[in-house]
Order: sequence, then C-alpha cells, then structure tokens
Amino acid sequence: MKRIWIYDTTLRDGKQAENVNLSLTDMLAIAKRLDQFGVDYLECGWPAANPKDRSFFEEIKKVELHHAQIAAFGSTRHAKNKVQEDPNIEALLKADTPVVTIFGKSWDLHVREVFHISLEENLKLVYESIDYLKRHNKQVFFDAEHFFDGYRSNPEYALKVLETAEKAGADAIILADTNGGMLPSMIREIMSVVTKEVKTHIGIHAHNDSDCAVANSLEAVLAGAVQVQGTFNGVGERCGNANLVSIIPNLVLKLGYDCGAITLERLKQLTEVSHYIYEIANLSPDNKQPYTGHSAFAHKGGVHVNAVEKNPKTYEHIDPEMVGNRRRILISEQSGKSNILEKAHELGLEIKDAFIQPLLHKVKEMENMGYEFEGADASFELLVKRITGNFVERFDIISFRVSSFVKTNDYSYVEATVKLRVGEMEELTVGEGDGPVNALDIALKKGLSVFYPVIKAVKLTDYKVRILNPKAGTAAVTRVLVSFQYNGYEWQTVGVSSNIIEASWQALVDSMHYILMKVEK
Amino acid sequence: MKRIWIYDTTLRDGKQAENVNLSLTDMLAIAKRLDQFGVDYLECGWPAANPKDRSFFEEIKKVELHHAQIAAFGSTRHAKNKVQEDPNIEALLKADTPVVTIFGKSWDLHVREVFHISLEENLKLVYESIDYLKRHNKQVFFDAEHFFDGYRSNPEYALKVLETAEKAGADAIILADTNGGMLPSMIREIMSVVTKEVKTHIGIHAHNDSDCAVANSLEAVLAGAVQVQGTFNGVGERCGNANLVSIIPNLVLKLGYDCGAITLERLKQLTEVSHYIYEIANLSPDNKQPYTGHSAFAHKGGVHVNAVEKNPKTYEHIDPEMVGNRRRILISEQSGKSNILEKAHELGLEIKDAFIQPLLHKVKEMENMGYEFEGADASFELLVKRITGNFVERFDIISFRVSSFVKTNDYSYVEATVKLRVGEMEELTVGEGDGPVNALDIALKKGLSVFYPVIKAVKLTDYKVRILNPKAGTAAVTRVLVSFQYNGYEWQTVGVSSNIIEASWQALVDSMHYILMKVEK
Repeated sequence: MKRIWIYDTTLRDGKQAENVNLSLTDMLAIAKRLDQFGVDYLECGWPAANPKDRSFFEEIKKVELHHAQIAAFGSTRHAKNKVQEDPNIEALLKADTPVVTIFGKSWDLHVREVFHISLEENLKLVYESIDYLKRHNKQVFFDAEHFFDGYRSNPEYALKVLETAEKAGADAIILADTNGGMLPSMIREIMSVVTKEVKTHIGIHAHNDSDCAVANSLEAVLAGAVQVQGTFNGVGERCGNANLVSIIPNLVLKLGYDCGAITLERLKQLTEVSHYIYEIANLSPDNKQPYTGHSAFAHKGGVHVNAVEKNPKTYEHIDPEMVGNRRRILISEQSGKSNILEKAHELGLEIKDAFIQPLLHKVKEMENMGYEFEGADASFELLVKRITGNFVERFDIISFRVSSFVKTNDYSYVEATVKLRVGEMEELTVGEGDGPVNALDIALKKGLSVFYPVIKAVKLTDYKVRILNPKAGTAAVTRVLVSFQYNGYEWQTVGVSSNIIEASWQALVDSMHYILMKVEK
Repeated sequence: MKRIWIYDTTLRDGKQAENVNLSLTDMLAIAKRLDQFGVDYLECGWPAANPKDRSFFEEIKKVELHHAQIAAFGSTRHAKNKVQEDPNIEALLKADTPVVTIFGKSWDLHVREVFHISLEENLKLVYESIDYLKRHNKQVFFDAEHFFDGYRSNPEYALKVLETAEKAGADAIILADTNGGMLPSMIREIMSVVTKEVKTHIGIHAHNDSDCAVANSLEAVLAGAVQVQGTFNGVGERCGNANLVSIIPNLVLKLGYDCGAITLERLKQLTEVSHYIYEIANLSPDNKQPYTGHSAFAHKGGVHVNAVEKNPKTYEHIDPEMVGNRRRILISEQSGKSNILEKAHELGLEIKDAFIQPLLHKVKEMENMGYEFEGADASFELLVKRITGNFVERFDIISFRVSSFVKTNDYSYVEATVKLRVGEMEELTVGEGDGPVNALDIALKKGLSVFYPVIKAVKLTDYKVRILNPKAGTAAVTRVLVSFQYNGYEWQTVGVSSNIIEASWQALVDSMHYILMKVEK
C-alpha cells in the first residue's frame, strides 16, 4: 500500500471562495477537527497578506496537535527585493511553522505579463526563495502555479522551473492546475513527462473549473504523485478546489492507497467532518455531495428501493457506514408502498394494510402543496400516527397573533400572543423576541409549560427557509424546516404556507406535539 | 472532428433526484428548451411506470421539434411474460416515439438476486425485447445497466450480454455505471476491452457517486464511445447523473469534438439554459457549478483581481462569454482597492480617491454584520452613492408595523401599515397580503405611489432568505435578498437583521430608492 500525503488548504485557498468568511475562532475549530481526523498537512493562511492569518499562526502554537503539520503560504520573493529583505518571505519565517509552501510562476505568460520580468530572472526568484527558507530549516513545498498551462505553452521552461526548485532543495514540488481547466487525459500526458524529469516528491493541486478536479487528482496519483492538495467539501475560488471529501475515500476504498492516520476506522467520521466544516463555514451542505451528502445514499424510485432491500450492493457503490453516512428511503411522488413502509420501519412504526392507501394519498396531497418529509421525520411520524388513529392531541391552538413594529432610528418591538387549550383549560400568553418566530416560540412554550413543564427545556436549534419559486399566476409558497433539541435529542418538523409566519408556526406546533408524545413514552 | 451524440435524460433519470418533482407543463418546457439548444436525444420518461410520463408522450407529439429525437424508456420484458404480451414493452410502443431505450441486466448479481432467473434466461430477455422493438421499426438503444460492476464481477457474462444486444440489432449499446462508483482508470481499462468486442455504436451513462461522472464520460469518449448520456445540471438520484452542462463544453472547447447542433454559437446559451432548468425544476442553482455557475468566473483575492485585469487568461480557463457566463469581481474581506474600484467601474460609478478608504471601511463593517453585496449590486450602488454624497433621499420612513393573526380553522389576516414622508408631506397607508413581506410591499408601494406614480409598475419577482447559523451565544441573523422588476429591468437588494421582517423591509426600501434614482435619470 503506497503512502499518499493529504494536504488540506481549506483555511487558505478555501477562504478565497465566494461566501466563505472565517473568523479566527472558526479557523482554529476547523484546524483542530481536521487534525483529529488525520490530515497530514494544514495550510492555514498567507501571513504576508492577511493580519487574521498572522494571529492564527500565533494561536495555533498553543494548541496541541495530534498529527497534522501546519504550513504557512506565500510567494517567491518580489523581483525588486533581496530575499533576506523581502517582507513576504520574512512573514513566512515569522509564522514559525514547520512547513512553508511558496508558489512561483511556471507559465511564461505570467512571468512576462504579470511579473514583467525575464524568464531567467524568475528562475532566480524560485531558487533563492527556496534556498533561503531551506537554510532556515523549513520543510519547503514549492507550488508551481499554473504548471499545466505553463507546460502547454512552453514545456521546456515549465520543466526548467521544476528543475530549479529541485536543485534549490524543495522537499516536494506541487503541480498546480490553478485555472482548473485541465482534463484527466491532459494530466496523464504531462505527468508522464514530469515523473521522468523530477525525482523529488510530486504533489497535485487541482481546481474544479472543468468539473474534473477529483479525477485529475486521482490521475496524478496513479501517475506517481504522492501528495494531494485540496479542501474539505471542495470550497474554493470560482468552482472550488479538488474535494478531499471525495478524494480520500476514492484513494482508500477504491484504489487501496494508504492515507496515514486516515484509517478505515477514521473514515467513518468523514460525513460528520464534512458537515462540521459546512456548519463552521456557515454554508448549506450540498445534498448531492458524493459519499457524505444527505442524498448520497437516498433511494426514491420504487424499483431501486425494492432492489436495495434485497441487496444494498444493487444500487450502492459502497456501504454508507464506511464513511459514516446512512441509507435513506424517500417518500415522494415516485414512492410506492415499499418506500412508505420502509420509511415507517426505519422509524419503528407499524402500519396496518388498511392505512397504507390513505397514508400514501395524504403524503402525495401534501407534497403537491409543497411539503417535503425528506428532512422532517418528526412531521412524517406525526402524520402516520394521526392517520392510523394512534395519536393523542395533547393541546389545541385557538389562535395566535404576531406583530413587528419599527419606528426608524428610535424604537422597535416584536410581540406574539398565543391562545391554546389543554382539556378544558385555556391559556393566553405573550412573548417578545428578536424576530417573529422567536417571539412565537417563546409565547407558545410559555403557554404549554403551564401544563407540561418539560417544555421549558426544549430549544429551537435551527431554522431554515426555502421559498418555492412562484410559478405563473400563483403566489410564492414558503417551506420552513425547524430543528429542536431536548436533552441532547434532536428532531425536525416542516411547515408550508404562502405566509412565512404561518409556515413557521406549523413547524413549531408539530415539534411541540412530537416531543410531548416522545416524553410521555 | 468526430461526432458525439448528446442524449439527455433530465426528464427521466433526473426526475429520480431528491427534491425534483416536475409537472407535465415543466416537462414540456424543458423538452422544448433542450431541443432549441441542440440536444440530439431527449429521454422523457418511463411510460409503463408513470401516468404523467404517458401524458407527456401524447403532448410532445403536438410540439414541432427542431432537432431532438424523443426516446421512451423501459426495461426488457418481464421473465414471466411473452414479449408481445409484456405490458412494459407494450407501453413503450404506445408511447409512439422514434427511439426506445431499454435497460437490461449485465451484472450476474442482479440477474440472480433481483430477477431470480438464470443467466441464460436473462440473455433471452435481452434478445427478444430488442428484436421485437426493432421489428416495430424503432431505433433501439440498449442500456446495459450496471455494466462496469458486472464486468468486474463476471467479465465473460457482461460481454455476452452486449454481444446478445448487438446480435438482436440494437442501434447503440450504452454502458451504464448505474451505481456511480467507477473511477476514470477503471472506465479506461474496461472500455479498451469492450471496443474490441463490440462494433455497434457505444454510449456511456455515468453517475456521480465517486465524484468522477464527468471525467468518466470523457474517458469513455476518448476510448471510443460516441454517445454521452447525462442530465442538465447533473440532477439525478443520489449524487446525480453525469452533468451535460460540464461535458458539452469539455467536448467542444477542450477536446474539439463535434456535438452536432450544439455549435460554438449555441454554446453561448449554456448558462441561460442551465439556469432555466434550475428555475423550472425549482432548484437553487449551484453557484460553484463549472462553466455556468454564478461564481464560476468570480474573483475575490486581490492578487487574482489584479492579474485578471492585466490578462484574463491568468485566472480563467476559458473566456466566460463562450458559455454565456460573465466575469465578476467580488467585494469581500479579502478585497482591496482593486475589487472595490473594479466593481464600481463595472457599475459605471466613479469614486474619488478620498472616498475609497471610508467606502472600504463601511463595506467591511457591514459584511461583519452579515451583509453580502455579491448578489445585490443595487444595494452596493446605493451605498457608494450615499458615501460619496451623490445620493438624494427621495423619501424617509417614519415607521412600519406588520401583524399576522390566525384563528385555527377559521380566520386569518396579514396586515401592514407604513408611515413615510416625502418633503413636508406624510402618508400613512395600509396593505393586506398573503404574508408579511407581501403586505409590507403593498403598503409601501401604495404610499410611495402618491408621490411617484412610476412605483405602481414596480414588481417584486424573487425573495430569498438565508439564516446565518447562530454561533455561540449570539442570536441567528437573517439575510434577505429581493429582486424587483420595472419595465423588464431587474435589480437586487439586500437586508440583514435578527428580525426577518426588518431584514426584508431594508431590502424593500433599498429597492424603491434604487428605482426612483434610476427612473429620474
């Protein structure tokens, strides 16, 4: 089993992504999680360009890492500076990391049109920068920016840049497809030349502009690269970096490579790590994401559901548990009996034959209105219980009202009132909040707590809104998904309405019904 | 230039995706658009399994198509039926399409564990089904389901299935990686054997479970496949199908193949077609999507922005206009002067040196609060004008209030009041709506129309909500993006607040200020 080193740049190249803004705390949280997971190298910022990155390098020294080595990122010296006086190189040394990665130009177009220097002078920049850092006892990775474009434009020069880096003592030479435009066949062809010329460890750094970043990285490894650079969830500028969440299981499970600390056992954390990064980066997870996406092992068509019940291998390329994901059976227009029953089974519910048709009918009717039970198991469970007559209504809502008032630059309030009934008793409560849903949640829980004190410990933890695009002539419909927590137990409910307040309200009320039912048991 | 045929299955396999539910009208709209674009084949449903698909085949006959041929999809006959009495085969003939695609098993595991028949009997199913359809003058494509898994499990049998399909007269044999688990190297290896054995046209049908569907499709083409099956935007079950939106430009622009009616000129519609499909399917576009994504040519890092200004090739793999996309300069934490100035330049705004620092400061301050100007050019323009003192406030808001009241199963209302001032005049108006934003929009426009009648023709066209996840101790913040239209002209504004109503209100008010400023000019 050949060893492949995993180099993560979520905290440097990943931050170039549109919509990604990480605070210092976020960066530290991500670094710790990726270290625990077993990533070999963590590229954490560009100290010369970003004060936040400089603080990060200070802070990370106080953290005891299990495995990962921290890398600082920067460029070769500026043409007008001596290497020992170059502020960028100086910032790299000051970052005080075991690894330094510097990028240099290997595309003649860049040397001429961006740096405005001679090709010969660029070689001097590369040599002196690496040499200087090596003499300061750094492990130095040389990132040959735009290498593949450079090779296609001027192969002799591109190779000469690599040769220079090798002579200067670089510990690894990284071939970067900076513009992300390469296809696997191109990587293969160029790698076959490079591996003949370069004896130093080779790495690959791919971007996804041709939708081939993962495949390009794998092709490079098959051709001899031993280091793979990428980001978690493929975050990164433009179309993103090569996605390590796909590359790692492909290397380990499909091609049998050894990724060091990322053992088969660790790989079971992959889904959790992937979602953790989305959460910290405040991005919506990509449900379709290979291996770790919410839909990655979801089965909808009746034929598929049927076959998967007979043998999961029929429609699953791996056992989802190997990457910590799970099989899901979807309830949808294409669902037949098997989906509904399988889903109910998953939730531990029994459904007598007589109720299957009415349930299927109700599910389809609600889906037409915009409901989706795919992310709201608790609402689905309530629906099943209600239809099968197994549900006790523990409270009724009589009415609610919520108002927001804002007087510009002066005063604002959000206030909700809720009137509910439990048995013969009515309760009218009022709550104030940051926003209308917050106020409704407070007023509702205040009222219910009178009868069910357990409700005091129930907490709203997530709130998602999806506007279902208005089609010809009809008003837009809002779908709201909420998550609640009680004592470490979490559940989700859904609401749909043309009024966002009412949709939110439905989901809130369902969640209260759900936890009261669960707690009573 | 070798010809490659593009076979779209958005309307069949794409519909298996979680969250994708297409009405008959949606299906017809998509078929027409893909035909116009120049796709060769449109697989539009499974008539035996789905009544909606049967209606589709009736309706599409009334449509005059420019180029595309319609394909109906189904399976080989059931083991227990004679071919002429098989309801699935009958439904395929009834669909009355020029092309019929039938899938059959080529993986011994499936034959044994799902069909529960002998390997020999399965060959009979394949032969008789194809032969029967050919004798009914259909163009028949045989889809060898799970071919690659089948080959890895039992190569002789998998090849025998292809040989049988060829003998029966199939017009093309499609190799399907149904579970999506293949890697490019595996496709290459197996294709090199298949092309020696099979002389009929070969097609590839890939899924994205290993994140290699696009690369796998390209590898198959390089090895001799002449038909590529996939879906637009890669919609499809689990991790999706191979994305034709990436494959087509890779084939045409990168590898120089001929995709028939999809000429270089047509390719300029790619971004528009991709977004059209998202819109009709009611899915949020993937901003990171290669070639057509909103971020695909977006530059954030100062260094990159700088270089792109010198020569776009430095950080763009193709000219975005070739696929109808465009370059975007982002305003962000990593922005320097160049981003702000470039963005302003893009919007036709001039900023004197003295205002650059205050503007940069303000942008960063607002971004810390959760604002993002990346999708809200109109708000950015207002901000620039306000900071540079070039803005005339055409109205002031004094206060607003919005209330929702619901009495269960009985009565509900949503009512908004707005008090505003223009010069010395105050106006208090009230509006009712489906939801709070709708009511506020109505009341605000009512008030402004008194002074600016042009406002009557302004229409809210889109409303997007993003909940910024609550972090330790702080309340969740809501970011709202709205789109408005006036006379075919469209613009976007943004609002941020812990109260969703207030965030929406800010965006509404900004939009009114914006259009009044534009109209005055």
